[in-house]
Amino acid sequence: MVSENKSYLDLVDDCDSFPYSDPSNPHHADPYAQFYAFYLPSDPRPHGYLLPATVASMPWTEEFSVDHDSKTITLNASQNPSTTSTSTSTTAFKHLIDTAISSNRFKLLHGEHSEPYPIIGARVPVSLERYAAPLFGIISRGAHLTVYTRCGDDGGELKIWVPRRSKHLFTYPNCLDTTVAGGVTAGEGPFECVVREAGEEASLDEQVVRQNAKSVGCLSYIHHKDAPGDSEKGLFSPELIYCFDLEVAPDAVCRQCDDEVKEFYLMGVQEVKHALERGEFKTNSACVMIDFFIRHGIVTPEEEKNYAEIVARLHRRLPFPTSSDQ
Amino acid sequence: MVSENKSYLDLVDDCDSFPYSDPSNPHHADPYAQFYAFYLPSDPRPHGYLLPATVASMPWTEEFSVDHDSKTITLNASQNPSTTSTSTSTTAFKHLIDTAISSNRFKLLHGEHSEPYPIIGARVPVSLERYAAPLFGIISRGAHLTVYTRCGDDGGELKIWVPRRSKHLFTYPNCLDTTVAGGVTAGEGPFECVVREAGEEASLDEQVVRQNAKSVGCLSYIHHKDAPGDSEKGLFSPELIYCFDLEVAPDAVCRQCDDEVKEFYLMGVQEVKHALERGEFKTNSACVMIDFFIRHGIVTPEEEKNYAEIVARLHRRLPFPTSSDQ
Repeated sequence: MVSENKSYLDLVDDCDSFPYSDPSNPHHADPYAQFYAFYLPSDPRPHGYLLPATVASMPWTEEFSVDHDSKTITLNASQNPSTTSTSTSTTAFKHLIDTAISSNRFKLLHGEHSEPYPIIGARVPVSLERYAAPLFGIISRGAHLTVYTRCGDDGGELKIWVPRRSKHLFTYPNCLDTTVAGGVTAGEGPFECVVREAGEEASLDEQVVRQNAKSVGCLSYIHHKDAPGDSEKGLFSPELIYCFDLEVAPDAVCRQCDDEVKEFYLMGVQEVKHALERGEFKTNSACVMIDFFIRHGIVTPEEEKNYAEIVARLHRRLPFPTSSDQ
Repeated sequence: MVSENKSYLDLVDDCDSFPYSDPSNPHHADPYAQFYAFYLPSDPRPHGYLLPATVASMPWTEEFSVDHDSKTITLNASQNPSTTSTSTSTTAFKHLIDTAISSNRFKLLHGEHSEPYPIIGARVPVSLERYAAPLFGIISRGAHLTVYTRCGDDGGELKIWVPRRSKHLFTYPNCLDTTVAGGVTAGEGPFECVVREAGEEASLDEQVVRQNAKSVGCLSYIHHKDAPGDSEKGLFSPELIYCFDLEVAPDAVCRQCDDEVKEFYLMGVQEVKHALERGEFKTNSACVMIDFFIRHGIVTPEEEKNYAEIVARLHRRLPFPTSSDQ
């Protein structure tokens, strides 16, 4: 996958790869037309989009209504007076995904269970397993922390801690990555996620992270997955990444402490730019780095002709509700 | 216009007020259907959208083809071998807008000429007058500089320099504003624009601004103008704002030096929050402040339930090309 001379816009295209609707051409092919919209109980707003191939392979249980004419899937969690509708919906997902895993229907699930992910924007809390979210086209959420320092006598040289992923990882083996990154699981906020992952992945002191990590925005995009396995090509995969920055002292060190990271490098801006150009970063981590460069004045509108397009594409409005009291 | 308790999302709605297409409902009203698309010579991509009322009132010259069936306006600058197509297109706009101003067809032009604005994303440089851009639905570009300082013994209290606009201004009289803001004119980059405006509007030293102002991103949105005058209600007005931050010493002072600013205040974060809630800021300057709050960790995903929606809406992808070698 290593390619020379990728532009920043090429890197954004790799990540935000699902087509946009074109308002200037009413006859354009609607990129959403083939998908089945996914609905939660008592909520008219869709929360996901499924491929027809996924709909055909999924071992639907009676809690899910599949309507091929309107291309909709609706979760109608039965109202058991002894449980809340929350746990009913979560339980319905659990039964469905348990069956899908045990019958090994989807390569994406790779036969194992994963952490619970909440459906952001749901009116009542509902969660499903992390690996299953892209099958339903439901928003996945991650949190990324970029750790950097200022070196040199005048503190003028910015350097960034960049890990290389282990070669045994299922996704993006050997790629460069954001300093610290993880999925935001049910019942956890983005900040707690980076505090936890910073200890697990980079051996960073909890108190240093807690006191100094700064929330700086979020990225959103829709990835058009091209995973191996016919049923899983072309999945609609909307993602939301909460971004945090952490400036550390020049003598601070990030060190691997689990087997997901092979090693850490302290890289100058030019080194990072070259690694981005060569396509060495994990797809979404390249976007987090581009956003860091934009926020830190390293990429500017004077020098980057695609500046406005890049910034807009890094913050795509997802076609689902994302506001939540959870 | 003062209203109590506006949420951040309310403030974003006020600015990014043109409706979105809804992919989950193919029968929804297409918000673009009523508009005429505007095309430049030899370029199949639209660069603007005009209201039927504007098309009817505009004193079109022979260089512009108006097609009511396809709802398109095309600039067909005649190829005069003695001039470049650039100057031909700019000249065609000049003739048209001169006539529109002298015949006083549009209140928006308020009978006077304004600075030349380039059409970003045009294949060859073309410009038209600033005040006329919204009539054609062409992207307007501004640059905003937020000047702030850190006060207190530990430098922990962030304060922001906030001007109040003069009461005689045509737009948003008496409103609070970004420290420094201006339109990016033809032949000028966003950075040079803020350097120039920082001297003109806030008496900031050119060298301080040049050395320390940092490019931090851009905002984009589509405003649905509701100006007085029937022909000018509902204009499609896409805007792009380049954002810059400047941290100054606690003893630095912003001081008005032209008649656009009434006075400057050094406001704490709570004061700014309350002024935003009361709707005291100019519409797009409220968005620049919200973006500042997000980038500085003042608004976080843990505390703001509409976080992801706000961030996406502040970076709307405009339906026109924005990449340019100019």
